[in-house]
Amino acid sequence: MTRVFNFSAGPATLPEEVLRQAAEEMTDWRGSGLSVMEMSHRSREFVSVLESAQCDLRELMAVPSNYRILFMQGGATAQNAIIPMNLAGRRSQPAIADFIHTGLWSGKSIAEAGRYCRVNVAATSEPQGFAAIPPRETWALSDNAAYLHICSNETIHGVEYPAVTDVGDVPLVADMSSSILSREIDVSKYGVIFASAQKNIGPAGLTVVIVREDLLGHALPCCPSMFDWKNVAENDSMFNTPPTYAIYVAGLVFQWLKRQGGTAVIERRNAAKAALLYDYLDSTDFYRNPVIREYRSRMNVPFFLHDQALDDAFVAGAAKRGLAQIRGHRAVGGMRASIYNAMPLEGVQALVSYMREFERMH
Amino acid sequence: MTRVFNFSAGPATLPEEVLRQAAEEMTDWRGSGLSVMEMSHRSREFVSVLESAQCDLRELMAVPSNYRILFMQGGATAQNAIIPMNLAGRRSQPAIADFIHTGLWSGKSIAEAGRYCRVNVAATSEPQGFAAIPPRETWALSDNAAYLHICSNETIHGVEYPAVTDVGDVPLVADMSSSILSREIDVSKYGVIFASAQKNIGPAGLTVVIVREDLLGHALPCCPSMFDWKNVAENDSMFNTPPTYAIYVAGLVFQWLKRQGGTAVIERRNAAKAALLYDYLDSTDFYRNPVIREYRSRMNVPFFLHDQALDDAFVAGAAKRGLAQIRGHRAVGGMRASIYNAMPLEGVQALVSYMREFERMH
Repeated sequence: MTRVFNFSAGPATLPEEVLRQAAEEMTDWRGSGLSVMEMSHRSREFVSVLESAQCDLRELMAVPSNYRILFMQGGATAQNAIIPMNLAGRRSQPAIADFIHTGLWSGKSIAEAGRYCRVNVAATSEPQGFAAIPPRETWALSDNAAYLHICSNETIHGVEYPAVTDVGDVPLVADMSSSILSREIDVSKYGVIFASAQKNIGPAGLTVVIVREDLLGHALPCCPSMFDWKNVAENDSMFNTPPTYAIYVAGLVFQWLKRQGGTAVIERRNAAKAALLYDYLDSTDFYRNPVIREYRSRMNVPFFLHDQALDDAFVAGAAKRGLAQIRGHRAVGGMRASIYNAMPLEGVQALVSYMREFERMH
Repeated sequence: MTRVFNFSAGPATLPEEVLRQAAEEMTDWRGSGLSVMEMSHRSREFVSVLESAQCDLRELMAVPSNYRILFMQGGATAQNAIIPMNLAGRRSQPAIADFIHTGLWSGKSIAEAGRYCRVNVAATSEPQGFAAIPPRETWALSDNAAYLHICSNETIHGVEYPAVTDVGDVPLVADMSSSILSREIDVSKYGVIFASAQKNIGPAGLTVVIVREDLLGHALPCCPSMFDWKNVAENDSMFNTPPTYAIYVAGLVFQWLKRQGGTAVIERRNAAKAALLYDYLDSTDFYRNPVIREYRSRMNVPFFLHDQALDDAFVAGAAKRGLAQIRGHRAVGGMRASIYNAMPLEGVQALVSYMREFERMH
């Protein structure tokens, strides 16, 4: 079979040229006689792989010099515990953390943080079925929160913050698992940015954490050593053996992104891809996207057929045309097209073309 | 360059046929049109990859049915915290955990456990420079320990338990990061076996935990949800997105091991490889291995040149002959030949041949 267009929400599609390079270098990385998978993490060769990945990410996101880039393990789910374990200690106990509740992922973050601090849900769009981001003026922030947590893009509900929100002095912590590197952002507005790799970065098993230096060094006593950001930073992400191969593939993705022209260029492409799909969805009653227009995600586009009895036929027909992993998350049903950086415009065009055809046939 | 013989202690050498298969399947896994790296972890395809890996590991190690096999993240270093977080709750607080101190890795486990429970070092070989395992009759075990922790093979000091030790009813927890699958063991003698993947299993970033079912369900309140073994077990290692590609490569290694004839066959090969190297070391004063014979590791063979001024020349000459990553750990210096399952006998023969030649020349 030839390659398909892969709409999985994550682990997700990767640039084909990255996969080809990884395959070519698998048994012998640049004349070393070794796979990257087989290199000591402390070898000169692997250290160069890791440093290049860090440098390229810093360049792509214009990360200021007072921020550290950490490569960790455990995904965003682990950070849901690791963040309060690292930040609650900034305030006298019990500390409070503020949260904006915008869907399933911020909901999980809220539940986990409750183990380590008091939680204040400063705003929620749950009554609106998570079809929007609660407006800034409705946020009931605490006076002295250890941090404020948002999920920049809700992968399942398909809602995204259209721009960074001014929150004053409290450290803004953003789960960018499904939007990192998809658009230009001003890192200096954030205290912590974290992301699982398996959407816009690379293989599952790697977590990127970008943290302002003054937020290091406040870990609670219960925080495992390897999850104390300060330990990770002081050891250049080598406090213990890092997920070396995932870091290597992430580095290849960063280089690919630079060859595309960087984040500004990819953001324009992503906007065009999303517009193509949303414009079609808005032009018909056969399909429906429930999210209020200004909060629609550019990365994850959930949609529902007017008659859910047609869902299975839609998925089967898509698969036949090489449009893979299009079914929605089990928590909400329907369909979901995840159109991350590595999804080419042609993939979205093929999807819309199939959706038109399916509409005509039914 | 052609492939080298790679003596790295971890990440470590992998079977070349595994790497070739991974390279071939990189852009299109078995006609799916996807890389395994790009598959939703909940897809039928990936679930089959994970289940095959679990089944094959269960078969290779003859894991009894009342044990669960978990695929986790964070390596053995994370488990150093995760183990007390999961087991200290079996006893009224503060619980005690017993440890046998046999080198750097058990030392790290002791230090980390102290965050979550009281620690009793029941025996240590530190006064002997970690050249042996303390004899069973000297172990001062606690009356009611939550568990007893050993490191089956100390990767840096090159000492290994020659056989499983009878410890009565206390759950025996064994760090087998550098010895798992290298020999036949009786899993039923252990409460918990854990191992980082990057020695005998596959890529760094994957941790295998084999846990007896009655030890699930005792996690301390501070334990992050994703590190509660019970959550991991109940969700078939999919409480959150697992390190999918690492699990796939591990599965290829398990299949390779089955093709070799399984653990019994690989154990005989490992014994022969180790004997070849130790016999040579014992035949000369030019090199020296400090470990008492019966406790010598079959996996990691540290050795020292009689004159450490020759170390750099030895390493450089080895590299020229395609004998890579032979330098010892910075904590102890000297050389170290890690000869895991994937190191062929020819690699050890080439090393001994080079050592003889180097001895003649100096």
